[in-house]
Amino acid sequence: MDQTSTLIEHIVEAWTQLQTQQPLVQCITNSVAANYAANVLLAAGSSPAMIDNPFEAESFTTIAAALSINLGTPTNEQMQAMHISAQTAQRTHTPWVLDPVGYGTILKWRSDMVDELLHYNPTVIRGNASEISTLAGNQVESKGVDSTLNSADVYSQAKLLLEHAECIAISGESDFILTKEFDAVIQVNGGSYLQPKVTATGCALGALIAAYCAVATPTIATLAAHTHFAIAGKLAFEQTQMLGHFNVAFMDYIHYLNPDLIQQYADIKILKL
Amino acid sequence: MDQTSTLIEHIVEAWTQLQTQQPLVQCITNSVAANYAANVLLAAGSSPAMIDNPFEAESFTTIAAALSINLGTPTNEQMQAMHISAQTAQRTHTPWVLDPVGYGTILKWRSDMVDELLHYNPTVIRGNASEISTLAGNQVESKGVDSTLNSADVYSQAKLLLEHAECIAISGESDFILTKEFDAVIQVNGGSYLQPKVTATGCALGALIAAYCAVATPTIATLAAHTHFAIAGKLAFEQTQMLGHFNVAFMDYIHYLNPDLIQQYADIKILKL
Amino acid sequence: MDQTSTLIEHIVEAWTQLQTQQPLVQCITNSVAANYAANVLLAAGSSPAMIDNPFEAESFTTIAAALSINLGTPTNEQMQAMHISAQTAQRTHTPWVLDPVGYGTILKWRSDMVDELLHYNPTVIRGNASEISTLAGNQVESKGVDSTLNSADVYSQAKLLLEHAECIAISGESDFILTKEFDAVIQVNGGSYLQPKVTATGCALGALIAAYCAVATPTIATLAAHTHFAIAGKLAFEQTQMLGHFNVAFMDYIHYLNPDLIQQYADIKILKL
Repeated sequence: MDQTSTLIEHIVEAWTQLQTQQPLVQCITNSVAANYAANVLLAAGSSPAMIDNPFEAESFTTIAAALSINLGTPTNEQMQAMHISAQTAQRTHTPWVLDPVGYGTILKWRSDMVDELLHYNPTVIRGNASEISTLAGNQVESKGVDSTLNSADVYSQAKLLLEHAECIAISGESDFILTKEFDAVIQVNGGSYLQPKVTATGCALGALIAAYCAVATPTIATLAAHTHFAIAGKLAFEQTQMLGHFNVAFMDYIHYLNPDLIQQYADIKILKL
Repeated sequence: MDQTSTLIEHIVEAWTQLQTQQPLVQCITNSVAANYAANVLLAAGSSPAMIDNPFEAESFTTIAAALSINLGTPTNEQMQAMHISAQTAQRTHTPWVLDPVGYGTILKWRSDMVDELLHYNPTVIRGNASEISTLAGNQVESKGVDSTLNSADVYSQAKLLLEHAECIAISGESDFILTKEFDAVIQVNGGSYLQPKVTATGCALGALIAAYCAVATPTIATLAAHTHFAIAGKLAFEQTQMLGHFNVAFMDYIHYLNPDLIQQYADIKILKL
Repeated sequence: MDQTSTLIEHIVEAWTQLQTQQPLVQCITNSVAANYAANVLLAAGSSPAMIDNPFEAESFTTIAAALSINLGTPTNEQMQAMHISAQTAQRTHTPWVLDPVGYGTILKWRSDMVDELLHYNPTVIRGNASEISTLAGNQVESKGVDSTLNSADVYSQAKLLLEHAECIAISGESDFILTKEFDAVIQVNGGSYLQPKVTATGCALGALIAAYCAVATPTIATLAAHTHFAIAGKLAFEQTQMLGHFNVAFMDYIHYLNPDLIQQYADIKILKL
């Protein structure tokens, strides 16, 4: 069996474990993504809880199987909760995902917080090409929270970020996952051009990576979540190209995924880093 | 006419009153449920308003026909608003529903608040089996906001909570409603196994109980809301088993319900308490 | 070409510019509308960012092409952000839209804030008939955030508000847009009776007006957004009268709109003011 087939076997195993264990995933996320990310996590097989206040953050992270932190629309209370939960996750060796939405000089408050959160060693950092490139130290012209760069153009820049995390995931037309474990970058194809037309899909993907981190190694978890999304997006698009219906079908397939569909549709490629 | 048929007649009457009066329902709810609960309330026939700040809580509760308080993702400002609105509701004899999401030792901040809110005598307390059992004083292993227990196993424990409220509603595969008025427990069947795979359905159900409380007695209101959900879930599931489409069809039937469908599909059973 | 045809040409041009420029639109909005408004903005062709904290408000408004402020469920932090962003928008000549949700004596906190925000000269004020009438100084019986008045009955009252803004838009069965530029009121027909049964459509419409303001004059922008909604609502309703599916189809057509559909379905009428 070649290396790609082995990875796909691991993805199937991770998906199976997600259904069996239904891990409890704490999400500190934004007001746009809260409902959507919770629905994606439930549909995919895990048990989400959006505990985002500083008074319950520590005790809850202690029992959570994984944690997802997203900087989309932070409040002061959420910022405190992020700090506490990330610190707790590091202490308890709970895997956690950092999604630095909007990272850049224009949005300084959150960007300073992201810089601080890096000290707690996120398991995975995920973002779009603009966010990851800026986080890696490049000057990128910001356009709010949407990307102005291509994922394929920035993944080599992201290598620097592997000093902070086990994996770096960059979403875009193709997704790229840099992994310390394999010293490689893995390309994930699929999805549809309609996906960026639905808000919070990136945020929900970050939450799903966290869910998979509860049942697999960081590399397999990140790869499994991206593949889960890519297949659901591809199948939904085959069914309809109308945006509202596409989003409904996308949720259908997030839930309907199974080992056969993974084997049939997973489209990944291992590249040298 | 037997007792069950009489109850169903009362449910039809409550539904009719909801369409006629379109009561104004104040919801202090969580970030995951806000949009979904508002859509359910509108679709069902009432007029929702998510007024959840402490500066407008008192005056707004004074004009609201009912109030729904949900502890899903509380903020400090919401906590203050809950306090003020519950107190105001008690003073003005406005019916109100308490949904103690995540009640338990792990989530102490909200649980302490729930204990305080009980002093303002909620009209109805509703939750899943874990929450209601814990609130009744049992030690339950928490798994975030999803239940680890069966509704059928805990309803007898919930009897103690009738000292705080007119009705206790426990949702699960079957729903159980304990009522002081009839000194009985009423079982509501229906829905679908897909319903817990859609986030915030419990939260929206709590809001709908509040809406019905504006137009019916606590027992009939709680029963009507649960029946409304059970029928919509059943009919949606008959139409599709794909999760995204199921949720769309569920909203269709929340809106499309009518006396004939209630008569045809209501599935309730009166048990001794 | 008559005046109505000329306006429709301008709407087509505004829509085309929206697709080309994909302007960055900052939204400070409520918890019910956040996801829905972001999806509408993305589907319509613009790039939304829900930056609503006071620490990033000034720098972000500086780069945004337009700003939408909605008072649905304000928090203290959002209130500060509204103040800063409105002030910044005025200073940088960035067009901005004010949506005074729930304006009236019962909801004093937000209403006082709305009064203050008027000093920063919103480009457009939009609301339902109750809100606009109350804002124009009339005593209106409040029913939360839903209207108790007809849009056709209040548009003449709204003339007073043109001292604060370039356009006043009143949504209802028909929409009415008062414009300083043309010294006229423009009636927009379309939509469907199901639209008010979906929450946050008005809030999303306010955000869409802001998006169009980035690429057209205030009058054309307001008219284009209302026409965009009216056509999408009309076509969705032709497809289905079931509420859940209607909302999905509505999003389909928000995205699917094109010059031919605008030419074919725009239904506007210029009235004397």
